[in-house]
Amino acid sequence: MAPPTAYLASVGTCLPGDPVDNATLAKLVGVDETWAEMFTGNISRYLAVDLATGQIRHSLADIATTAADRALAEAGLEPGDVDCVVLGTATPDHLMPATVNLVADRLGVDNVPTYQLQSGCAGAVQALDVARTLLLAGRCTTALVIGGDVCAKHLQTDFDPGSRTSAELVNYVLFGDGAGAAVLSTEARGQGIEIRQVLNRLVGLGREPGQVIDWFGLGDRHSDRTAVFEDYKAIEASVPVMAGQMFWELLDDLGWSADAVDFLLPPQLSGRMSDRISAGMPAPEARRVNVVRTVGNNGNALPFLQLAELLRQWDGPGRAVAVAIESSKWIKSGIALERS
Amino acid sequence: MAPPTAYLASVGTCLPGDPVDNATLAKLVGVDETWAEMFTGNISRYLAVDLATGQIRHSLADIATTAADRALAEAGLEPGDVDCVVLGTATPDHLMPATVNLVADRLGVDNVPTYQLQSGCAGAVQALDVARTLLLAGRCTTALVIGGDVCAKHLQTDFDPGSRTSAELVNYVLFGDGAGAAVLSTEARGQGIEIRQVLNRLVGLGREPGQVIDWFGLGDRHSDRTAVFEDYKAIEASVPVMAGQMFWELLDDLGWSADAVDFLLPPQLSGRMSDRISAGMPAPEARRVNVVRTVGNNGNALPFLQLAELLRQWDGPGRAVAVAIESSKWIKSGIALERS
Repeated sequence: MAPPTAYLASVGTCLPGDPVDNATLAKLVGVDETWAEMFTGNISRYLAVDLATGQIRHSLADIATTAADRALAEAGLEPGDVDCVVLGTATPDHLMPATVNLVADRLGVDNVPTYQLQSGCAGAVQALDVARTLLLAGRCTTALVIGGDVCAKHLQTDFDPGSRTSAELVNYVLFGDGAGAAVLSTEARGQGIEIRQVLNRLVGLGREPGQVIDWFGLGDRHSDRTAVFEDYKAIEASVPVMAGQMFWELLDDLGWSADAVDFLLPPQLSGRMSDRISAGMPAPEARRVNVVRTVGNNGNALPFLQLAELLRQWDGPGRAVAVAIESSKWIKSGIALERS
Repeated sequence: MAPPTAYLASVGTCLPGDPVDNATLAKLVGVDETWAEMFTGNISRYLAVDLATGQIRHSLADIATTAADRALAEAGLEPGDVDCVVLGTATPDHLMPATVNLVADRLGVDNVPTYQLQSGCAGAVQALDVARTLLLAGRCTTALVIGGDVCAKHLQTDFDPGSRTSAELVNYVLFGDGAGAAVLSTEARGQGIEIRQVLNRLVGLGREPGQVIDWFGLGDRHSDRTAVFEDYKAIEASVPVMAGQMFWELLDDLGWSADAVDFLLPPQLSGRMSDRISAGMPAPEARRVNVVRTVGNNGNALPFLQLAELLRQWDGPGRAVAVAIESSKWIKSGIALERS
């Protein structure tokens, strides 16, 4: 018996609340509006927290459930059809229960294996990787895959703008919240796009992390240690190179030529960075699918948001390549899709 | 070509520092020594933090690396032989980078996929589940699987014992820190024990969580919301029933009779609870492998510590069944092993 094929059946997304534009954000956190756009190239983002009041309006479970609901509806499936759930996030609502299990409960999914990956910008690909592997191993037939992040616990809303360092202010303009989901199936249902390959590899040996996000517990929450750190210089230097490498690895693995790529989904650090990274991935015929400019960097949600945009544009046969790079400890990941 | 078989090649463990006995603990946190033993049935535990000084002596990455190192040495393998790493924990050192990637870096493992599961008491089984699936799908041949927890961030060491509720004090006597690791291979190397089955399912539909562990971020760390919650009544009522169900599910799945089980590894909530749970798993000929009485409840490490003890006792052909239950949002999990 031939091993199963994994198909992408559908995608669903959820962005919390209304978009927050640079003018609104600039006023709230005390940065220059023009600088925000110049630095990131982003014009808006969505936030689960109301910055003006500090009120948290959406949890990760909330927006992940909505995205998953939409993906299931798009695929024409019921919760009872799902036989495994995989969620990737850097910012779970709690350490326990894992958010994936709260989402499953709200959807009415039960009696199936669930997995939650602790992951950053490569997390959506890792979640798709685990789900596809469960399908290829014959363990499952219909996987619900979810990615999302909610930064609310890390955003300080009661602050004096003058006291923030520029590194802290950068995070306000760069990041956003959101969730996305996809249904994977061993049958060519829904979109019926074949997932030809998923690559996902740690390449961090001997390298300092480019991004660190800490958490505090009951016992150490009043400690004043640094909680968030980004090495933007290392990120700017390494991510375009790694993205180019992953792009060629995917093509080599499948024997595809760069000319034959119809859609390219480049890493989405920021609008400005994505343009730079994109330039280093020479797919002359490919339409570029970027979303970060309007949704902000919402981590584990981004590749799902790109996939949703891809499906809006993609009609008929063709090939698509998506690349995601995680700077935390340097992970290269990518996906190749084909519709015949 | 027949699908691959997954074998357990070796196990390694690491417990931080010296055992902390009930007398020492009782004096430090201000509980009655006899009560500590009566309530939990545990006589000692290992802690990554020095309760007397509050100094954190070991991170999860520290003890997970040591356990993984020992598992690799036991299997006669080098870090370069590993082609995927899976780690399960409820208490990662940071949200990013995932601790699994810091461990891989220290071991010298690179250029392979890594996965970190956010998981509680069923996490070791989930990690073994993901690793075995990677092997069965033909994705990998040699998986390093790790589980561990370090509660240091949640332990308050600068407190007035009189101000603690009994629910808080229970956690001091119940929990412990530790890590374990196993090497899984598609070849019958090392111990060459066949992993016949891994079952792992969320069964929490419509049920309130039995355990909640929250975390705090940069923005909300000074909030005074409840951070740790256990519903011990629900745990005491449900876990023995769920463990019995998983025991029979494993036997039914494999067509094994209860008489033919040589070793039983029951859930390890506490010494006292494990005895109760064990009584509901009728394997008349089976030797019971318990470790929680001396190591404390160290979550994702426990099943690895039981497997290490199993390997010390197990010589020749036979069958072993391990069951782990997670009360966070109610997960049943189990493993069946066979040596021919």
